[in-house]
This record gives sequence, structure tokens and C-alpha cells, in this order.
Amino acid sequence: MYRTHTCGELRIGDKQKQVTLAGWVQTVRKFGSITFVDIRDRYGITQLLFNESLTAQLDTNPLGREFVITASGNVNERSNKNGNIPTGEIEILVDSFKVLNKSITPPFSIQDDTDGGDELRMKYRFLDLRRNAVKKNLELRYLVNRSARAYLHEQNFMDIETPFLIKSTPEGARDFVVPSRMNEGQFYALPQSPQTFKQLLMVSGYDRYYQIVKCFRDEDLRADRQPEFTQIDCEMSFVEQEDILDMFEGLIKRIFSDVKNISITEKVERMTWEDAMWNFGNDKPDIRFDMKITNIKSAFRRGGELHANGDLIAGTEFKVFNDAETVVSIAAPGCSEYTRKQTDELTDWIKRPQIGMNGLVYIKCNADGSFKSSVDKFFDEEKLRKIASGCNAKPGDLILILAGKEEKTRKAISELRLEIGKRLGFRKDDEFKLLWVMDFPLFEYAEEDNRWVARHHPFTSPKPDHIQVMIDNNPVIENAAAYLQHPYSEIKANAYDMVLNGNEIGGGSIRIFQRDLQEKMFAALGMDQEEAMHKFGFLLGAFEYGAPPHGGIAFGFDRLCAILGGSESIRDFIAFPKNNSGRDVMLDAPSTIDAKQMKELGLK
Amino acid sequence: MYRTHTCGELRIGDKQKQVTLAGWVQTVRKFGSITFVDIRDRYGITQLLFNESLTAQLDTNPLGREFVITASGNVNERSNKNGNIPTGEIEILVDSFKVLNKSITPPFSIQDDTDGGDELRMKYRFLDLRRNAVKKNLELRYLVNRSARAYLHEQNFMDIETPFLIKSTPEGARDFVVPSRMNEGQFYALPQSPQTFKQLLMVSGYDRYYQIVKCFRDEDLRADRQPEFTQIDCEMSFVEQEDILDMFEGLIKRIFSDVKNISITEKVERMTWEDAMWNFGNDKPDIRFDMKITNIKSAFRRGGELHANGDLIAGTEFKVFNDAETVVSIAAPGCSEYTRKQTDELTDWIKRPQIGMNGLVYIKCNADGSFKSSVDKFFDEEKLRKIASGCNAKPGDLILILAGKEEKTRKAISELRLEIGKRLGFRKDDEFKLLWVMDFPLFEYAEEDNRWVARHHPFTSPKPDHIQVMIDNNPVIENAAAYLQHPYSEIKANAYDMVLNGNEIGGGSIRIFQRDLQEKMFAALGMDQEEAMHKFGFLLGAFEYGAPPHGGIAFGFDRLCAILGGSESIRDFIAFPKNNSGRDVMLDAPSTIDAKQMKELGLK
Repeated sequence: MYRTHTCGELRIGDKQKQVTLAGWVQTVRKFGSITFVDIRDRYGITQLLFNESLTAQLDTNPLGREFVITASGNVNERSNKNGNIPTGEIEILVDSFKVLNKSITPPFSIQDDTDGGDELRMKYRFLDLRRNAVKKNLELRYLVNRSARAYLHEQNFMDIETPFLIKSTPEGARDFVVPSRMNEGQFYALPQSPQTFKQLLMVSGYDRYYQIVKCFRDEDLRADRQPEFTQIDCEMSFVEQEDILDMFEGLIKRIFSDVKNISITEKVERMTWEDAMWNFGNDKPDIRFDMKITNIKSAFRRGGELHANGDLIAGTEFKVFNDAETVVSIAAPGCSEYTRKQTDELTDWIKRPQIGMNGLVYIKCNADGSFKSSVDKFFDEEKLRKIASGCNAKPGDLILILAGKEEKTRKAISELRLEIGKRLGFRKDDEFKLLWVMDFPLFEYAEEDNRWVARHHPFTSPKPDHIQVMIDNNPVIENAAAYLQHPYSEIKANAYDMVLNGNEIGGGSIRIFQRDLQEKMFAALGMDQEEAMHKFGFLLGAFEYGAPPHGGIAFGFDRLCAILGGSESIRDFIAFPKNNSGRDVMLDAPSTIDAKQMKELGLK
Repeated sequence: MYRTHTCGELRIGDKQKQVTLAGWVQTVRKFGSITFVDIRDRYGITQLLFNESLTAQLDTNPLGREFVITASGNVNERSNKNGNIPTGEIEILVDSFKVLNKSITPPFSIQDDTDGGDELRMKYRFLDLRRNAVKKNLELRYLVNRSARAYLHEQNFMDIETPFLIKSTPEGARDFVVPSRMNEGQFYALPQSPQTFKQLLMVSGYDRYYQIVKCFRDEDLRADRQPEFTQIDCEMSFVEQEDILDMFEGLIKRIFSDVKNISITEKVERMTWEDAMWNFGNDKPDIRFDMKITNIKSAFRRGGELHANGDLIAGTEFKVFNDAETVVSIAAPGCSEYTRKQTDELTDWIKRPQIGMNGLVYIKCNADGSFKSSVDKFFDEEKLRKIASGCNAKPGDLILILAGKEEKTRKAISELRLEIGKRLGFRKDDEFKLLWVMDFPLFEYAEEDNRWVARHHPFTSPKPDHIQVMIDNNPVIENAAAYLQHPYSEIKANAYDMVLNGNEIGGGSIRIFQRDLQEKMFAALGMDQEEAMHKFGFLLGAFEYGAPPHGGIAFGFDRLCAILGGSESIRDFIAFPKNNSGRDVMLDAPSTIDAKQMKELGLK
């Protein structure tokens, strides 16, 4: 028997007990003729006291950091208590010990503030995982997992496993494929999500399904994307959008309660996609702070019309604004006294390739009511006041203005808003703001192919009163330049994203459940009937045998855990993540395979 | 809102309530001017009563089987109650209804005893899943899942997800591989099990890990094997074999209690691998019945020696026995009066290609104490009595004897024992007998390569007192014919299988945790140092940084569910299984992929 107790378990009440512990040597401190050894396991740290004779043994065969030992002895009350750890009142008077395994010196220290760089930590992930900081992340992940399962079970959801070796039907992202040895020239695909299977389960009558499941996307990796990732995947039958929003507000609230001990009683805020784009410049606004975008001159489309926020810049000679498709601003509160150096630095920030704007206009709304701007030449005090008023800027604020092409400029002002919010301390790790973003467009326009693509996926239903618009109109875009005039551009989806602190943590939709509408959707996406049948014939077939109305949602489990853990990086919440090139540097995977394997698979 | 209640929920206490139900039309029965419609969902069946005016509507637009409808009305006490279903005391007096979706006629009936053949049911699996019989299987699966998670959580195990895109290190079975688009010519592999990852987690200090996880093996499929399957995968640190057996007896007992309401209080029986082979002819004996094998003349090796069960056939002229390497028998109780037709039929059975024996010798132990055998020419009454006595056969028994090469003959007698056990009703679906089989050989001899292969896997530790044998001896087999004399053939593993009713439901081992012993193991398996470092360098490296003693087990989740459900087929317990050729006939996968996909992956 290696141990009777864990290293986090013993208390003053265990005094005099004969115990055996096992774990890793954290520290060795010799005091004269005796030695203190801190021994660590998953549960905590306990102090061992080696007496004179055992210390003599250690002199011959020293214990090193990360040695694995087992030690037996009596629980003793410490004279010098440590109030920082739960076992701090006791120590073990060791009477015997054994080294179970040695350790060479780790390449970095096993501590919260490690000296190991990212690459080294990934190569030795098995050591990195020993650090308390990483362990806490995995424990949080397990807690979220358990919390979600408990809630979903109580709500009658059933965990049903769906297959991993499926059929390749790429829509949007690329599939990872798996060559079949038994069927040369044929391939399985790894699922990007269990989407069609969960819909089939609804057709089968399993009206509440869930799964915490790995999914795969062969995308060009961006920072903090993983080729394999985990979803909390859910689907329900006989529901309308409101039923789903209710159910999964319940889920997220339960997780907050179980994991963060935060009770959320109010309903989750809701925002239309158009309001999100208009006021925050993106579809996953961080609403921990306000600082809304003002559209000084906007080509943004709302309800089929172009809107602008009044004529704030009319009658000036400033060509940059006059020529721009879009001019947008934010008012950074209390920043009117930014120095030239600070505004220059902001200008550099928005000129970085990741943002790519040409310049930044600022207006300082001085505390005394006067104004000072970088465009004083073109705007007199009255015009500046008009803009400031339009932007709801107060004395002491700094108005920041970007101008350019609509999409790029809106994206840039959104990034600038987040950056300013961060700098001003408005984006606190321990503050959590949930939001439903709703009423997404059903279609997006793909310029290269002059066709519609599904914004969410091809199984998303239009809003009930937009179904007829979809059925009645020909999806073909005759005039590419005027695609915005096509009725399809106005169709909204019965889709919803859950946003947490500016991150999309979940997304879903009410699904199409009628064969004819699903066929119309495939046709709208430019799939001819043969292709539709080849790829999704099983689903179209299933819809003919009594498919119920249904809808669902999938949460990004890795991201959700990261945000709950107050981190920006999902990698810290995955036991064995891949790097930004999709490699596992510990395993050195992917790698070449044997010629024999290649031959068996019929591959070259 | 589609429903206020499910179809399994309403009782007599709900009388007068106004309710809305949604579900599938099971039956439509018209009685004069009114119509009864049974509506079904996951939770049950409820009777709807359509009045005269609604029945008139149905005359115009009839409801078909499997139509999806929603119906509102009052809960009414039935005059003609149905005691067979929980909702049988009530019906709904429908005041309005709506067809949500139609159904064409299903290709087979959605009933327990369906008329659908296997292939049809798999093609329309989404309809097959509607059948109560299949639904019960998936519900049982979910229950086993929950029971296992609950127990493991209480025991401080942590669910930690391990990666699916890993490195190909085939040992034994073939890997499924995944071409990497970003690293042309390189491949990921899908895990055959999370073995090395769970060992790394032990090195990382997560001393109790579990996962219910998909694994993948690209094997030539036999009946009831799936290329993807699910394991309950577990690992523990600071344990000896006895700790693991205890812990997982606890798990299986908990599952029996939660799922079958069967309380198992006694300890699980144990049997050495040698005893299992000797007495039952295989390493996963069905001990629901006795009928042990008698070795009349055996070359089976026990403890390094050849043993035979006395000289039961000495001094006869029967060449078949005299020339055979092995002669083994069972005594089928109460079968002495089998007719010639019955014994002929058994002879045909063991001559089938799946068994492949040349013939069957029988001895009838008549109730009057006399004997009658198929070899009376060679064996007089005294010799027959001696054999019968050696076989512990009683008057009324039928002794069945097979002779031939050791391995084949032992396998055949084992199959014959199971077949006779089945015919005699000794193998009851509702009787459950657990067994630990232990002390497996560490190595098996691979004739084609004249080398050792790991019987379990290369990470299994020898028994403590066999470690030195392994270290001290050169693994090279100088004399292939005498491989049984090599000391390695005597090394036993610290490995254990859990057997339930003649099926291996779980297997595991204490692992090697010392780098030098692991290197010796790789060398013993014929891996040179370069190959060992290329494939498992990360694990060998990890063992240098304080690896604790550890061990674990993995349960075959699909099989466990099937046995608990009283079925022989794991496919019935998988939502979307593949057929015996590894195809998903519903999806038609695997399939060809686009030329564009092939090109992107650099494949031909």
C-alpha cells in the first residue's frame, strides 16, 4: 500500500495517527541535523519531518525536486504553523520512507509563476499539467462538465453518442478525412459537429438530446483555434425559439451558480444582430461597458434602408470624411487630456496591419467646454460641438473617429472600442455579462461565386414570416452589384448566439424540418438536386417520415471554460492542446507513417 | 407552444385539465362517427378522442401512421380503461389539432416485433430508433453512463479529455489515419485508446482519471465489431493490483445496482489465466455453468511443464487419439439418450468451417451404468468407465471428446461447451456471473517474426517477482522451435480482465513506470532504440521526471451495455452503428471525396 491518506487531507484532529503518504517532493529544507520535506499530490501539500538518522540517509542519497516518494510516520502538531495551507497545522514525523522514482531536474519550475516559455511548457506538457494554475483550469473544466450534465439530465435530456467516422459534406469549413482501407479510394470524414445526427435523433423522437463531444475543423488556424474542440451539443423537439432561449439561459445560469457561485436572476439581455452591428460594430458585443459607436455618416443597412445618424459632417471640406463610405466614432470617457504621444500611439495602433486603417481623427472635449481636434482646419468649434453632441460625448471625453470602407471601418472601430475599454479597465475578468444576439441574416452574399451562403448553416430555418419570401423568390442573383436589393438579403434566420463578455460562447437555430423547404435551401446555396441528394439524401429522406419541429444550440466548451476561468486562451483549459500550426509538439504529431501503412490505404 | 405535457404524463388526477400534446400518430381507429387516435412520443402513448365534427375533417384529410400532430383538449376519464399503459385511464377530448408534418408509409412497422430486416432497419435507422426496443437500449446505455460517472466522481476520479488527433504508433491493430493538409505527407492517427495520455496524466499527478471515450481500430471486421467503439477508460496512481480490482469491482457492482437493481455483495471470483485455459479452453470463461473440460491427453502447458490428466487412453489402438497432440472432453449432463440424429448433428456442428474439427467421439453414460460409445471398437467397457470417471461424468451424461492440435482443439471444445450450455439452457440472459481472469502471460510468441509480442500492450508491467527475469535475460529467441523454453515465456503480467457471462467486458494492468524497464520492454518486442524514441520518446521522457506507480483498466462500454440489456449484439446499443463491412449504410459512408479535397490534402 502506497498511501493511507492524500497530501491534502490531514488536520490537527488526525494527531498521533500513523499514516503513509505518497507524492512528489516539492522542497527539501535542511535545518541542522533534521530535514523538512514538502510532499505534494493532486490534493495538497504536507510537511514531512525527517529525523537525524533519516537525514543522514538523505545526505548519502539526496531527495531531488519532483522525486516520487512514499513516507510513513506519525501525525504531529507543528510548532511553526502555516496558516496558508489547510494542512499547515500538522507535519509527519517520518519513521520510514522509500523513493518510488527519481526525477531529473525539470526544464522549468513547477510553480504558479513558472519560468517556462510557451513552447517549452507545451513540449513538456506532462510537467506543465503539474502546475497548480493548470490543474485548477482542468478542475474548472470538469466542474462545468458536471454542472451541464446535471442540469440537462434534470431537464430530461439524454446523452446519445453520435458517430465520428461519417461522410464528408463540407459546407464552409474543410473536413478532416480518414482514408478507408477496406474501401480503397473512399474516405470517412470527422464531424465538424453532430448537426445532422442530432436532427435525425429528433426525427427518431428523442426530443431532448445532448452530448459533450469532440468536433473537428480543418481550418487555417488562427491564434487560439484548435483543429479539435469540444462542444456541449443540444437539440430539442416541439419547441419554438423562445423555448430554447429559456432552456439554455437556465443552463448557463446553472453553470454560473455551480462553478462561480454567481446567481443570475434577471433574464439575459437580447439584442438584434442589426443593433449589435450598428451600435458595437460586431455581432458579439462586449456589453460590460457602453461606449456605443456613433454613425456620423454611415452606409450601414438597417431594414433594407441606408441610415445615417443625422448630418453631423455636412458642409465641410474634409475630403477624408466626405469621400468615405462610413465615418464612425466612439467617445472615450475621461480621456480628453491624452497627450500627443498617447493619441499618436492610438493612431499607430489602428494603423497596424491587423487593423489596417489609414488614420485616426480625434476631438478632445475639454473639461471647460472647449474643443480641440486633429481636424481644426476643417471643423470650427460649432461643428465640433455638433459632432460631440451627436456622439453623446461629455466634457472630459475624447472622441475617436475612423473613416473608410463600411465593413473594414466598422470592424476597426469595434476593435478600437474593445482596446479602449481594456485600457480603461472596463473589461474585468471577474465581471460577466451575457447577451443573446438574434435575428441574424439567413444568407450572406459570396462575391467570388455570386451566390448565397448560409450564415449559420444550411439547416437553419428562416423566421416564420420570412419562409414565404424564401419560397416565392428565385435565389439566383441576376445583378451582382445590386445583391442587396434581392429579397433574400432581407430574410432573417431563426438563429441566436449567446455572447459572454464579447465572446460567442454558443450558437444555434430553429431548424428546417420540411423536405421542400430544405430542398429550396440547398438550391438557394447553389447545390443542384443531385449534389443535395448525394450529400444529404438521408436527411431529406428522414424529413418525409414525420419530422417534428425542432431546434438546438451548441456551446463552445473550451471557450466557455476559458472565460469562466478568467483567461483569454482556450489552450490553458485543454489537457493536451495543439499549437497554432495544429501540431502536438509533445508527441511530434502529425508525422510521417510507414510505407506499409500508406500502401495498405492505397495512398501516395 | 406545441405541447403542455408529454404523451406519457397524464393520469386520472389530471382530469378536466386543458392540455396540448404533440407526437406521432401510432394508430387511427374510427368507431362510427368518432375517431380514436393514439399519439406517441418518447415518454409514452396517449389516446385522443376526435368528436364527430373533427372526424369529418379527418375524413377529408386523413391522418396517416407516423404523422406528427399537435392536439389540444380536455383530459377525460376513459370508459374503457387500458391497464397496460400508465396513461390508460384517460383520454383527451380533442377540441383542435394541427398536422405539423406528414409521413409517407414507413418501410417497416414501428413496433417491437418489426417486419424490417437488418439491412432495411440500418438504412432507415432514424425510423428503427423510434421502436421501443431500440429506445430502451439507448436509455439503458445512458443509465450505465450516468451510473459509471456517479461512482467514479464519488471516488475522486476526474474526467479529463484526451486528444483525438494523435500520432500513429501502431502496435497490434492498425490505426485509422488523418492526412494533414497543413503538413503535406504527414498524418495524424485516431487513438486506439487514450493509453499513453492517461499514463502521462498519472505522471502529471492527476491520480484518478476517467473518460467515456470513443476509440478507433482499423481491423478486419468480424461480426459485432465496430471500427469506432466506446470505452470507460480509467487510470489510478499509487496503487497495486489489489487496489484496482477493489475499485472496479465497486464500479461494476454499482452499475448492476443502478441499472439492473441487482445487488452483488460477494467478492468477484478470480481465476488464473492458466486455470481458465485448462478448465474452460479460453481466457473468458462463462461460469454461469460448470461442465469443465477434462484433459484426457493434453499438451497444455502449466507452470512450464506439460500436464496430462492421468493416462486415460493409454494402451488402446485408436490412432486418432494416439496421434493427437491434445484430447479433451466435456460431459453434457443428462444427454446420454441423445439419438443418432442428435449426435450426428453435433458432429456436423463441430465440422463447420468456423470450428473446423474432423470428428467427434462420444460416450453415452447410460442411466443403468453401462456405456455406449462411437469408439466401442477400440475401448472396452472398463476403459470407457475409466474415462468417464476421469471426466467426472455421471450416469445419464453424454461425454463429448475432441482430438487434434492443441490450440485448435482447445478452442473447439470451448465452443462446444458453450453451445451445449446454450442448448441446455445454462446460459440465461438474466443471470450474471462476473469473473476476474488474472496472471496472463506478459508475452506471446509471434511465429512469423520469431519474436515476442505483448499480450496486453507494451506498457503492462510484469508481476513484481518476474521483473528481474525480464531484465536479466536476452529477449532474442535463438531456437524458434523451443521458444517455450525461453524464460520470457514464463513471465506473467500484472494484468487482469473482467469477464461477464463469457465476455471480456474490461481489461487492464499495472503499468511499467520506470524508463529502463520500459526500454527493455520495447527491445523485447523487437523495437530498436531509434524506433522506440520516435514512437514513444515522449513517454520515456516523461518517466524521467518522477513517474508514480500506476495502473488502470478500460471497459468496453458497447459490449457491457449489450450484456446488461440481455443482447448478443452491440449494434443494438449504438445509435448509429456501422455494418460488418464498416459502412454506414444510412449515410453511405465512406464515400469518395472531391478532387479539390484530394488535391488540398496532397493525396492520390
